[in-house]
Amino acid sequence: MKKSEGIDISFAEAVKYDQNGLVPAIVQDVDSGKVLMMAYMNKESLEMTLKERKACYWSRSRQKLWIKGETSGNVQKVEQICIDCDGDTILLKVKQKGGACHVGYHSCFYRQVEGDNESMAICDEKLFDAEEVYGKSSG
Amino acid sequence: MKKSEGIDISFAEAVKYDQNGLVPAIVQDVDSGKVLMMAYMNKESLEMTLKERKACYWSRSRQKLWIKGETSGNVQKVEQICIDCDGDTILLKVKQKGGACHVGYHSCFYRQVEGDNESMAICDEKLFDAEEVYGKSSG
Repeated sequence: MKKSEGIDISFAEAVKYDQNGLVPAIVQDVDSGKVLMMAYMNKESLEMTLKERKACYWSRSRQKLWIKGETSGNVQKVEQICIDCDGDTILLKVKQKGGACHVGYHSCFYRQVEGDNESMAICDEKLFDAEEVYGKSSG
Repeated sequence: MKKSEGIDISFAEAVKYDQNGLVPAIVQDVDSGKVLMMAYMNKESLEMTLKERKACYWSRSRQKLWIKGETSGNVQKVEQICIDCDGDTILLKVKQKGGACHVGYHSCFYRQVEGDNESMAICDEKLFDAEEVYGKSSG
């Protein structure tokens, strides 16, 4: 690590994409601090996010650009963008409209391990009905 | 997604490892909500984390189990373990001793994008001197 600790380069130079050209992005609610989801970005989606300040990802399942909220309306206004020491993970702090999770919860991390590790419990708030928002094919 | 929304299976059954047998784990300070780092777990390190309730990862660079804090003393006591809707990302809520980042910051996400996207600024607190803790080879 250089003396300036990595801020003497541009953000674009700092980002290290993996062998598939992707970088993981952790998404956090800027007000509550709740971790909402993780998604992946390619160069194009990251550039779009920087320009528009609305979160845009690369959908690995659909193999296309994915503007978060394009179907559900649950867009993410990007307030702050951080990068980690290794340059291989991004942290977006966002204002989330509605729920981030396609199942209908505020956060995708709506399940937690219970005491004995063998079971799980719901640990988040459900905000919408997935079928109503995405149609019957959801989930 | 089933009616029980994924809690009718065990945590171990819910976790989906990638083609390298790894799952990313986001690490968040349980008290402040600050996102501290992201690391990867294989089955063995996840089982060790669940058993010991101290964070253990798989080091991709060193290709071995990595008990966080084994060199620095900056261990992570695991208070809560969540999993996302797709089962392919874990969220650990921890009590972090000292700084999480090998550069010496509290969080690995100590750099943020500045207004014009072309520059970055430090946005976190430095807690220790990396050379003192890890030796001259660090960074």
